[in-house]
Amino acid sequence: MDLTRAAAEALDDADPLAGFRSRFAGTDDDGPDRLLYLDGNSLGRMPLDTPAALARIAEEEWGRGLVGSWASWIDVGTRVGDVIGTGVLGARPGEVLLADSTSVDLYKLLVAAADARPGRDVLVCSADDFPTDRYVVAGVAAARGMTVREVPADVDEGLDPAVLAGALDERVAVVVLSVVAYRSGALADVAAVTATAREAGALVLWDLSHAAGAVTLDLAATGVDLAVGCTYKYLNGGPGAPAFLYVRRELQEQLRQPIWGWFGQRDQFAMGPAYDPAPGIDRFGVGTPPVLAAAAVEVGAALVAEAGIDRLAAKGRAMTDLLVALADACLTPHGTVLASPRDPARRGSHVTLAHPAAWQLTQALVDRGVVPDFRTPHRVRLGPAPLYTRFVDVWDAVDRFRALLEDGAWRDYPQERSRVT
Amino acid sequence: MDLTRAAAEALDDADPLAGFRSRFAGTDDDGPDRLLYLDGNSLGRMPLDTPAALARIAEEEWGRGLVGSWASWIDVGTRVGDVIGTGVLGARPGEVLLADSTSVDLYKLLVAAADARPGRDVLVCSADDFPTDRYVVAGVAAARGMTVREVPADVDEGLDPAVLAGALDERVAVVVLSVVAYRSGALADVAAVTATAREAGALVLWDLSHAAGAVTLDLAATGVDLAVGCTYKYLNGGPGAPAFLYVRRELQEQLRQPIWGWFGQRDQFAMGPAYDPAPGIDRFGVGTPPVLAAAAVEVGAALVAEAGIDRLAAKGRAMTDLLVALADACLTPHGTVLASPRDPARRGSHVTLAHPAAWQLTQALVDRGVVPDFRTPHRVRLGPAPLYTRFVDVWDAVDRFRALLEDGAWRDYPQERSRVT
Repeated sequence: MDLTRAAAEALDDADPLAGFRSRFAGTDDDGPDRLLYLDGNSLGRMPLDTPAALARIAEEEWGRGLVGSWASWIDVGTRVGDVIGTGVLGARPGEVLLADSTSVDLYKLLVAAADARPGRDVLVCSADDFPTDRYVVAGVAAARGMTVREVPADVDEGLDPAVLAGALDERVAVVVLSVVAYRSGALADVAAVTATAREAGALVLWDLSHAAGAVTLDLAATGVDLAVGCTYKYLNGGPGAPAFLYVRRELQEQLRQPIWGWFGQRDQFAMGPAYDPAPGIDRFGVGTPPVLAAAAVEVGAALVAEAGIDRLAAKGRAMTDLLVALADACLTPHGTVLASPRDPARRGSHVTLAHPAAWQLTQALVDRGVVPDFRTPHRVRLGPAPLYTRFVDVWDAVDRFRALLEDGAWRDYPQERSRVT
Repeated sequence: MDLTRAAAEALDDADPLAGFRSRFAGTDDDGPDRLLYLDGNSLGRMPLDTPAALARIAEEEWGRGLVGSWASWIDVGTRVGDVIGTGVLGARPGEVLLADSTSVDLYKLLVAAADARPGRDVLVCSADDFPTDRYVVAGVAAARGMTVREVPADVDEGLDPAVLAGALDERVAVVVLSVVAYRSGALADVAAVTATAREAGALVLWDLSHAAGAVTLDLAATGVDLAVGCTYKYLNGGPGAPAFLYVRRELQEQLRQPIWGWFGQRDQFAMGPAYDPAPGIDRFGVGTPPVLAAAAVEVGAALVAEAGIDRLAAKGRAMTDLLVALADACLTPHGTVLASPRDPARRGSHVTLAHPAAWQLTQALVDRGVVPDFRTPHRVRLGPAPLYTRFVDVWDAVDRFRALLEDGAWRDYPQERSRVT
């Protein structure tokens, strides 16, 4: 691979998605000191159309339309859900709902899935999964007297399908797994894991948070039954944006989620005496949908759909390929260790480097205009977002990282981690 | 009572809150055909400062500050929670958290409360409570093998404390009740009910949705243990705005909610292996807080706090007093029946009128620029919001209502209820 900056520029020149960059805030500075934002996998950049969308919903629909606007808001969860589902996830219409947070959606679908496997008393998760996934599994298991089987996973390489298969037996009700591991970016084999679990009689509940908008997820074709995910990373929905949940159409009527709210009720405005879940994906709703926040999600998800998930995934692989090659050449000599799968087909769109001083390096990088994420233990996570990160941004970020490692200025930064990282 | 329009104008002239009206969108039209919005108890009007607050959070904090803004966002749930708690609810700092929807918060606190009363197997609610409250209670009871005791409540007069007391015994774990009944506006005696339930060893979980911002709620002084509520009604937080939950300080460490998410975790960014709930009100959080939506809630709640809840409640009583007197004089002769308590001390800030053609009347009123709510069975609900509704608005609304009843044009409207009402 040609590792010159000119080669990176050539990749940008040939990038069919290059035009999307200018549709995000903060991308107009092309100078040498510009911010290199490699944390779109934590919080995606703001689409330039978002403030106008928020203003329109607020001023026109809420301010002027008042309560009458509920005629158009009532379906916001399924409408934006379909933008995500059909545009980004490869789901069929009516399989995705925008509602609640990822954690709450995980809880709802996990309880529903466990209820659908009576007599089975084990929940399986990865020992290396994102905290909220493991905590939600632990909480549901504790409340139901179930056992959690935490499958050991390699922090850098992800979960070994054979190890997972070994943990599946007739006691397992539900398996909770992330498609893309939050630390390493390791990409699970969704179709294979789903099929293996199904053979064992278990349901798999996938967390798509670090995958949606970054890798191709053909939920319909790969036979996925249940999934949840976040919209503030690669879907650019804004800080704390509402999450989505996916339930395969054929499974919807068999499942009942545990939080019986009025937005999951059939003919809700009849205000009937007893809870009677709505048909379809609506039954997985709970409270009044977040109309303002949903407007921002719609803008961000529509951009991903417009760019096309296959093109985004291909660019993500190419950018992380370049990042790995540059790290090998420029950073590894200074003590970083690749903490992500080397095979691009086994990665999402972020790459993690381990270094004993990762927290100090993270702080120093931010001060030099490179925004990565610190992740325990001693890891620097670099997430080029294919919608708006350029190959030259990756090149320049590694170059600044190299310079930092060479001059050692990171040693001046606190070793003690701050609360928010 | 002087029922002339001039008398209503005089009340407006003497209103110490009159200046707040101009701080809401859609209040600049003072003409005879202006919109008379009496549905602030369903969706509060938009504060004029809200679009700028949304734009600032989006463009500056998200667009420019990117992930670095989490340093200020991380506490948004408790910060806005305190604006509501100390400014509106009479809670102490650190007792209110902005998080999730009212239904999800109800679920979390109900399960936590039931867990805190082991050996008790009955949940009590009002047979006339808002659907989501009854459904959440039913769902939790079903999942735990508990029994629901639905206390009969008069649809117009509210729950009789003596009837409730008769339903309390050593089997009751939790009582779920609304402070202001969603149909009639009947106001519960919070202190008395809480004390009675406590004597019986039960916890009361109050739903403040139709009360917060409309009546004085001295949660600290009245000994309330648990509460949830909505911010899109009298708190003017916007459609589907996030809800709040309240847990008395002394009770927080004893309770554990069932959805173990990373925003309820102690030192969350340590990403530790096991769930260990944060100290204080933070443990009732679950997922990433809704930053954009919270900005709108903060503007609305701060306006309520600035106006002062005692003054708002007094104006609410005065407006509903006028409304009842006008209805007696002008509408009752045409067949409406008061479906709210007559005693202003027993009402929130809305008044409901029953009429066999309530749905047709509601549609016709909307077409004549009066926005009420239809509520089952055959009721028209009229909610003057003390922050921005004037006494002359009440007067004019009743006048248009009277004219409609006299000319009978409502008979041209569909009898069949539409989906969104």
